[in-house]
Amino acid sequence: MAQITNANLVSYSPSLKVLDCTLRDGGLVNSFHFSDDFVRDLYKTCIASGIDYMEFGYKADRDIFDESEFGKWKFCKDDDIRAIVGDNDTSLKISVMADVGRTNYERDILDKSDSPIDLIRVATYINSIPTAIEMIEDAKNKGYEVSCNLMAVSKVNSEDLINGLNEIARSSTDYIYIVDSFGCFYPEQVARLTDQYVEIGDKFNKKIGMHAHNNQQLAFANTITALMHNAKILDSTVSGMGRGAGNCFTESLLSFLRNPKYKLFPMLNFVEKHIVKLKAEGNQWGYDIPYLLTGILNAHPSSAIKFIKDNRTDYSRYYHELLDNTL
Amino acid sequence: MAQITNANLVSYSPSLKVLDCTLRDGGLVNSFHFSDDFVRDLYKTCIASGIDYMEFGYKADRDIFDESEFGKWKFCKDDDIRAIVGDNDTSLKISVMADVGRTNYERDILDKSDSPIDLIRVATYINSIPTAIEMIEDAKNKGYEVSCNLMAVSKVNSEDLINGLNEIARSSTDYIYIVDSFGCFYPEQVARLTDQYVEIGDKFNKKIGMHAHNNQQLAFANTITALMHNAKILDSTVSGMGRGAGNCFTESLLSFLRNPKYKLFPMLNFVEKHIVKLKAEGNQWGYDIPYLLTGILNAHPSSAIKFIKDNRTDYSRYYHELLDNTL
Repeated sequence: MAQITNANLVSYSPSLKVLDCTLRDGGLVNSFHFSDDFVRDLYKTCIASGIDYMEFGYKADRDIFDESEFGKWKFCKDDDIRAIVGDNDTSLKISVMADVGRTNYERDILDKSDSPIDLIRVATYINSIPTAIEMIEDAKNKGYEVSCNLMAVSKVNSEDLINGLNEIARSSTDYIYIVDSFGCFYPEQVARLTDQYVEIGDKFNKKIGMHAHNNQQLAFANTITALMHNAKILDSTVSGMGRGAGNCFTESLLSFLRNPKYKLFPMLNFVEKHIVKLKAEGNQWGYDIPYLLTGILNAHPSSAIKFIKDNRTDYSRYYHELLDNTL
Repeated sequence: MAQITNANLVSYSPSLKVLDCTLRDGGLVNSFHFSDDFVRDLYKTCIASGIDYMEFGYKADRDIFDESEFGKWKFCKDDDIRAIVGDNDTSLKISVMADVGRTNYERDILDKSDSPIDLIRVATYINSIPTAIEMIEDAKNKGYEVSCNLMAVSKVNSEDLINGLNEIARSSTDYIYIVDSFGCFYPEQVARLTDQYVEIGDKFNKKIGMHAHNNQQLAFANTITALMHNAKILDSTVSGMGRGAGNCFTESLLSFLRNPKYKLFPMLNFVEKHIVKLKAEGNQWGYDIPYLLTGILNAHPSSAIKFIKDNRTDYSRYYHELLDNTL
């Protein structure tokens, strides 16, 4: 096992970064229909809380997705970001996610010198790594920081994973992310996986990131486990807002980190002003038994989301259905 | 660091025990007003799920607590237990909790040969260990299995803890429990603490237990961390029912354990039939920001319970209040 950092609770890692992806993962809850007030306040809150990166959403292709069906943060036009952040003359960096196969990156990702965006996060599955690498190189050539988020890694066999990670590590990406898309990993697995990513990343000077889901109420535990195993960028969302069981809570993460630049108070104010309202308006996310069940079966959460939307509580029957349809 | 067990996800520890304390910790939510139907079904469910111990409640002193204010499981008269379990001719063992200073153990704990109870769990603070040891010896002499649950260990300094653990380990107790009363520990702390308990326990042939709270959404993570560090008995409650943020979910724990005797389906049926109803009736527990805040400050959850009961959402002001009144 690789050396574990942060073995005490007083020291901290100055090079650690936190990325708040509330708008992006949370956008999957409300189809990106956030008010400008919400987005502006979140931007101010991220600055005040010492967050390192704020993700505004996806750079989705307008030829593939109907703009009338989604809020603007599905598309993250540079002008829309600029309307919130101006020239973003702050220490907070701006990221967007670019999905392989669903982004017109040649057209929609401008040169960094013309854009308020700092970091392009290329999201890929194992079998689309060649396209991801083209997108990584495109973004790097345009002047951005770049990450590669290899999704659904819990479905990838060990040999393919090593080959895939080595391909990604040889690219120009700055970060490589562990993405527990289905919230199925236990901390001991995250520990081993992080060691593996770090070992490969170290050879090519790439930093490792962690993106967790809360299906088993382990998103926070898995995130700080990755941190202890030398992950250097951690994703979280305010109150865990995200599809299905949601994500690692930014509040929890900020309360754990000892770097004095991270502040909890502004985030609590934001929750009070905006998240309480969002929940009262009927937006649903967070841990519940159906998500536990898809998590332990390493299955996509879509059927669990439907189960909850349908107000079903026949958990045992649902587990039967999952076993019949998943394994 | 001591040797870590369960480093793979296929093997399992046959000597591991699970104790469901839904009635006891959950009783703090509804003042022990469970219907007989609930208790009888939980008993059947624990048997069907392969649970090792089911805790029925407290053996509280009727001279100290008013019987009209609480349901019967605050007092756990042997006849009330017998009305549910008969002679309990099953592999499920029955436990009760006996609080130091609030139990008339000479009078209310009968000889094992006259009782359906198998395990007496003596709950103590660090400064009442001498009385706890008297209770442990009393229960042992009467023929019971015994555990000692040293509460609020996050408030105890390291030197006192070592002295206290050695005193307890020299007694006749079978189990010594790590109790994270305020839900303030991170997994890395639980790992170190479990190693320490196991080291002392091993000298005197005592097994170590883990009782977690979910203030930081770490109850499950901390419980399986303790397991990996050789804890041999783990507490959980159905759907995490328990005071404030609640406990480790029995559902999660059963889904994690690989011993074939543990079954998830019966537990899902119980949740569907009983827990959904209990929540609909207004019983409140589970993770929320106020509990996160008392957890990170190592504070008693009482003010957080009041905050939620009062329908407050001014999290930031509450955090100020806690900082003023806690540290």
